[in-house]
Amino acid sequence: MRHPSSSLDPFALPTHGGDLAAAEARFGRQADGWLDLSTGVSPFPYPLPAVDLTYCQRLPDATVEGDLRSVAAEAYGVLDAQKIVVAAGSQTIIQTLPRLRPFSRVAVIGPTYSEHAKSWMGAGHQVLPCETVERIGDAEVVVVVNPNNPDGRRHDLGRLLEISAALVAKGGLLVVDEAFGDVEPEQSLASHAGPGLLVLRSFGKFFGLAGLRLGFAIAEPSLARLLRTALGPWPVSGPALQIGQIALADRPWMEAARAKLFREAGLLDTLLVQANLSVTGGTPLFRLVNAPRAWALYEHLGQRGILVRPFAASPRWLRVGLPPGEDGRRRLVGALSDWRD
Amino acid sequence: MRHPSSSLDPFALPTHGGDLAAAEARFGRQADGWLDLSTGVSPFPYPLPAVDLTYCQRLPDATVEGDLRSVAAEAYGVLDAQKIVVAAGSQTIIQTLPRLRPFSRVAVIGPTYSEHAKSWMGAGHQVLPCETVERIGDAEVVVVVNPNNPDGRRHDLGRLLEISAALVAKGGLLVVDEAFGDVEPEQSLASHAGPGLLVLRSFGKFFGLAGLRLGFAIAEPSLARLLRTALGPWPVSGPALQIGQIALADRPWMEAARAKLFREAGLLDTLLVQANLSVTGGTPLFRLVNAPRAWALYEHLGQRGILVRPFAASPRWLRVGLPPGEDGRRRLVGALSDWRD
Repeated sequence: MRHPSSSLDPFALPTHGGDLAAAEARFGRQADGWLDLSTGVSPFPYPLPAVDLTYCQRLPDATVEGDLRSVAAEAYGVLDAQKIVVAAGSQTIIQTLPRLRPFSRVAVIGPTYSEHAKSWMGAGHQVLPCETVERIGDAEVVVVVNPNNPDGRRHDLGRLLEISAALVAKGGLLVVDEAFGDVEPEQSLASHAGPGLLVLRSFGKFFGLAGLRLGFAIAEPSLARLLRTALGPWPVSGPALQIGQIALADRPWMEAARAKLFREAGLLDTLLVQANLSVTGGTPLFRLVNAPRAWALYEHLGQRGILVRPFAASPRWLRVGLPPGEDGRRRLVGALSDWRD
Repeated sequence: MRHPSSSLDPFALPTHGGDLAAAEARFGRQADGWLDLSTGVSPFPYPLPAVDLTYCQRLPDATVEGDLRSVAAEAYGVLDAQKIVVAAGSQTIIQTLPRLRPFSRVAVIGPTYSEHAKSWMGAGHQVLPCETVERIGDAEVVVVVNPNNPDGRRHDLGRLLEISAALVAKGGLLVVDEAFGDVEPEQSLASHAGPGLLVLRSFGKFFGLAGLRLGFAIAEPSLARLLRTALGPWPVSGPALQIGQIALADRPWMEAARAKLFREAGLLDTLLVQANLSVTGGTPLFRLVNAPRAWALYEHLGQRGILVRPFAASPRWLRVGLPPGEDGRRRLVGALSDWRD
């Protein structure tokens, strides 16, 4: 490493965003509370409807889950709702999918969301970290996060479809994780999901309701059935099924949210650039800052009650989520004003 | 089979209670709606507090889960909250636990909740169905549901502790599933959980909120950690964490609910006996009817919009859950009035 970094032990860095308990253990309790910019969860949540007691009382049966499947299929442009698997967050599917395949060589295009490689390795597969989809070699499974987390890199959709077609021929699978895909639906491959192509969608990030735990896989019906069986009975809570169904059908809200997220991301970029930080990528739900002493900046902000996301493997990177409006931005500007690189 | 049963195909029987979608497919839509007595979920739910938006927005971090662990530990009489594993229903733990052990011979004391044997077999273990704990032979893992579902059989706690102690000596494990244990807390082994003894507790049944998906394992801290790792990050929804924390701390409600469930179970027994049915077991959350033509009775009730639980392997058994008060009981009495064995 050419740049002196902070005194920070990279192994002590958080492995996920959003862990305020760990932040408090490290930086102490914050008088003004935390400004949590460490995740890619929208700070502008879908307005919570009153939770229906029936959904909480009863075991969610096939009708309830089927209704959500239909709404999700429509929202994602999928013609056959049988392709939709409902799960308590796409994380659950990331953990489950590797257990359904025989030993495979798995190319994970990265650096990216760490749970993919972790889950495939944990299930006994051989994981080949690759920088681009052109380096997948003879892998049978390829995992791409599109747009990528944390750098926002976009993959060419035509190329991904070609790769999927090549994988089908040998019984392989392309997994496209579109966790941050709701903001730019035209970049989605969801409508192409089928043999050789599984798409993951996240509910909580775009709708700002990550605590609900709701996510989807879109896959050929036979793999979708396998996944449902592996997830077991009643994998998703009633409130998640109820709220998901309402929110995913609310096109006007979704349109307005997309516009708002683009605006807010622009305002965040302006603020970061004015603080002499270099924004090198991202999606409207988070920005990636490239800073020579990123870990020190993480500590600087943490000591001021602002949590961002450092990466143990990338000491120049910080992921910064959207502040929840004007007050949050002002607080971030204040904390950055006495930062010197 | 000595008794003529209905024309029903046992393979077409439901594998779980609560599936109104399947019931409707079989018996048609019910003008008066369904009276669902097919589960052991209390029809007297804990009053739903307003769901806190924060719990829905944020990824549930260690503080939130830790708070629920503490409350659960207190409720279950467990001194060390590190022993508590929070999951989206004890079903999730039933599915996960078998993957954490090397190949084992697993004695499942049954007939009982079918997911235990299914999960251990699915993970490659050898399952030995046993009628009593005296028949476990050289099994390394023993699974007991106490009180048992569906017959309500109670196991002697002293004997279970002896078995657990014997299993510890060879690195084995006794799993005691106390899914219906909240009504009679003095029958719980939760406070004894530790090396060789894992206890499962269910939230949704006693609190009448099965749709929330919340359950617990209580195990020695090292196994608890393994389970948490296997469940992955954010396994439980924010609303479940919030409501679980409130409900499990509400001792007066729990006391009143216990008394009410005993009363209601008594009223159900009276009604069943007056219809010349023989109640051979159960817990205050469900009763087991032994009837020569149980499957035919299941159909008779189904055609009248009342769903109970038949068992493919036990053609004389019907499990009947608690009706939600006087109206439900009257409807059941009406439906039974023209039943002839």
